[in-house]
Amino acid sequence: MRILIPVFPGITTLDAIGPYEVLRQLPDAEVFFPAAVPGPVPDGAGSLRLMATHRLADFSSADVLVVPGGPGARPLQEDRAFLDWIVRVHATTRWTTSVCTGSLILGAAGLLRGLDATTHFGAVEGLEAHGARYTEERVVVRGRVITSAGVSSGIDMALVLAERLSGAVAARAAQLQIEYDPRPPFDSGSYAKAPQEVRDYLVARRARGR
Amino acid sequence: MRILIPVFPGITTLDAIGPYEVLRQLPDAEVFFPAAVPGPVPDGAGSLRLMATHRLADFSSADVLVVPGGPGARPLQEDRAFLDWIVRVHATTRWTTSVCTGSLILGAAGLLRGLDATTHFGAVEGLEAHGARYTEERVVVRGRVITSAGVSSGIDMALVLAERLSGAVAARAAQLQIEYDPRPPFDSGSYAKAPQEVRDYLVARRARGR
Repeated sequence: MRILIPVFPGITTLDAIGPYEVLRQLPDAEVFFPAAVPGPVPDGAGSLRLMATHRLADFSSADVLVVPGGPGARPLQEDRAFLDWIVRVHATTRWTTSVCTGSLILGAAGLLRGLDATTHFGAVEGLEAHGARYTEERVVVRGRVITSAGVSSGIDMALVLAERLSGAVAARAAQLQIEYDPRPPFDSGSYAKAPQEVRDYLVARRARGR
Repeated sequence: MRILIPVFPGITTLDAIGPYEVLRQLPDAEVFFPAAVPGPVPDGAGSLRLMATHRLADFSSADVLVVPGGPGARPLQEDRAFLDWIVRVHATTRWTTSVCTGSLILGAAGLLRGLDATTHFGAVEGLEAHGARYTEERVVVRGRVITSAGVSSGIDMALVLAERLSGAVAARAAQLQIEYDPRPPFDSGSYAKAPQEVRDYLVARRARGR
């Protein structure tokens, strides 16, 4: 079972790594991290680099495609070569998925037109500009396309997908192995729940370019 | 604020990336991923490599030390140079933390003797062999040492730490930015909760060396 997680400069690494640590555990899973240019790929914060060991062009098909997001996802909406690769691989997949603003890439590739989908709370307008119907759920499964909300939602998405790919026991075993029994110490993990001062803090931070 | 996340061959990448995506957001955070040997560092599954851009020896102090785990953490319990570095940096930190079997490294470095601590459910005996008292909580804060349970618990740990480092609003903003509003589709994320057939599945998989 070939699982492709394309990476790119400006990726949010948890978007990729959350699903990776679930899906890599499934029977016969082979996970690859291809990039337009192989080698070290810097993340959006500039502190971390993931190694891309393959070119996108090394693959023309996959069982599962997981498209992560991050600040670098936005310019990819204009990257014809990248989008063509997404379309080509999507034609072969059992499941095509996105985490966070990875949905903008699926959208720009034309895969979400008329479809219910989700994304990071800060990218709702961008998602709808691609003809998707924003749906305020953490994981949205429609046909063989799964989109998920911001960053950490990729873990939930991958568990939903794991059950469909490999059954209930393998999916639950993956959850146990990563001890995903979340206990957030506070409850500000969605825009609807976060206090206004927390939202304001994020807006101000973005205005400072962080 | 200098945050060090040492990486090593055989790391479980989510142990490092979960805390990274929270802590990097804090005011004045500077995160580094040093390794004994800089360059690409392969993870425990062999599918992914993180780039280590610094040597351990490049740093002799930190505000925060986050020690991740993974299969590669076990041999580090015998690696005197690595353990000496941990001890040296720990002497300077405000907070010394571990995720998953990173606790075995803190234990081997002598930092958990007589202390309540936690780890991955598969490493409890190894933790206690270092004189720690295993505590079945997801995040255990004792003095300036924080240990957390398996893999994904590093996100919860980092949020607990974020509040202590930077206050309630910054910590909640970090949670919102990664949309950490978890919705696991099933409830097998701890050994106590997982059905017996799920536990058996993991044991059988390990016996096959996966």
